[in-house]
Amino acid sequence: MLIVGELINASRKEIAGLIRSRNREAIQKIAMNQVQNGADFIDVNAGIFMGEEPECLKWLVETVQAAVDAPCCIDSPDPVAVAAALSVHKGPPAMINSISLEENRYAPLLSVVAGTDLNVVALCMSDDGMPELLEERLSRADRLIHGLVQHNVALNQIYVDCLLQPVSTDPQSGRIFLDAVGHLMRTYDGVHTICGLSNISYGLPLRRLLNRTFMSMAVAHGLDAAILDPLDREMMSAIFAARTLVAQDDFCMDYLRAFREKRIEG
Amino acid sequence: MLIVGELINASRKEIAGLIRSRNREAIQKIAMNQVQNGADFIDVNAGIFMGEEPECLKWLVETVQAAVDAPCCIDSPDPVAVAAALSVHKGPPAMINSISLEENRYAPLLSVVAGTDLNVVALCMSDDGMPELLEERLSRADRLIHGLVQHNVALNQIYVDCLLQPVSTDPQSGRIFLDAVGHLMRTYDGVHTICGLSNISYGLPLRRLLNRTFMSMAVAHGLDAAILDPLDREMMSAIFAARTLVAQDDFCMDYLRAFREKRIEG
Repeated sequence: MLIVGELINASRKEIAGLIRSRNREAIQKIAMNQVQNGADFIDVNAGIFMGEEPECLKWLVETVQAAVDAPCCIDSPDPVAVAAALSVHKGPPAMINSISLEENRYAPLLSVVAGTDLNVVALCMSDDGMPELLEERLSRADRLIHGLVQHNVALNQIYVDCLLQPVSTDPQSGRIFLDAVGHLMRTYDGVHTICGLSNISYGLPLRRLLNRTFMSMAVAHGLDAAILDPLDREMMSAIFAARTLVAQDDFCMDYLRAFREKRIEG
Repeated sequence: MLIVGELINASRKEIAGLIRSRNREAIQKIAMNQVQNGADFIDVNAGIFMGEEPECLKWLVETVQAAVDAPCCIDSPDPVAVAAALSVHKGPPAMINSISLEENRYAPLLSVVAGTDLNVVALCMSDDGMPELLEERLSRADRLIHGLVQHNVALNQIYVDCLLQPVSTDPQSGRIFLDAVGHLMRTYDGVHTICGLSNISYGLPLRRLLNRTFMSMAVAHGLDAAILDPLDREMMSAIFAARTLVAQDDFCMDYLRAFREKRIEG
């Protein structure tokens, strides 16, 4: 399970303030905390800084990578901002979050990732809006995967995000998402699936219960990456438990180590 | 999701004592507690009372049913004990736990349930021991289902128990169980699947975390009945959440009611 730590996102008020004041130390502390708690990538998002996004993202990447060895997940739909962030990114290949089928996003971001070793989130969004049915998600995923592969991006660099809608507005959305993940993981050998899960619980009480319960289900259907808060111990406990329960954790080694290190609870 | 409350089981020391002393009030309190917390059936087991099992089971059924309207799940491999318990059972049809392919169990229990409206747990056990692979579980389930249907037991009276082994000894056992449940629910229209889930976590720490995480996965694969402790709030919370997440709870009504009644937490 690949974990993208979601906390350094300017849509959170606290983070916006830290970016605005260029508070290196505070940003670095959040990055380190996330890595210590299991993040493989550190998401950086400066989407609210209109006109300054490229500069803010560059600063975030440099700031984060001065503190941790983990690569960044560059969270922007703007190819200019992505390129700026990449120009200063070091170490293992970054992740681009995300390409989609939307016209103003597809070709420019494809040219950024084509022939590189970058990882890329492929979001099943198009100019027709949110996909409603399973077939729609799968056909969009198929178009994204084929486009990327034709431009020399390997399946194992691709992280398909099937888009999760709240069950409070569409009761079938959880079922459709799970079926889409299962289908993609069986169909494309080596491709990854990823998701920010919290959307599923929008509008309902006890959202953290719903989010981690859905995570367990998604792991059982093959989801192998997630954008989340690695400091959420109950979520991380559910992930360690889920992996051990479906043979993704040889001899329960990761689970037992996480237990010994008191990183999980139950 | 049908819940069989598991607490009145003589393999628990406290319960054995209550049965031995014929403590009606204490047994009835446990039965009422389970019903109030969501049990649809009350499991009664007096397996440790060699030679007295029929008499003990009769007393348990009468005692439980004097306090609650719920039917009992008669938990015994012995056709004589089952018949004794059934002779005093009232109200909606009981559940028999269980028939299996073991020679000393199959024919006698088949004759108890043939042509009745009793519910029956069909345990994928045979004289060859525990099934190891998926195919073995499915072929045993198939033999049990066909035998029962041929003897005029409807699919919707049958609760297949695919037998869950600890992941600590067989890492694939969780995966195999989930696949077996999914296959059976797709193949036999109306059949049920049931399980006591706690075996999965044997030998590992934080067993309750593993049990409820596996429950979420099993619900997503179609499991529609479970033998468990309905007083375990975290387990029940996971079940309510899981059902709402895979469209088994119209408009999240059960989830929202359970939240309002403070029966779930997260």
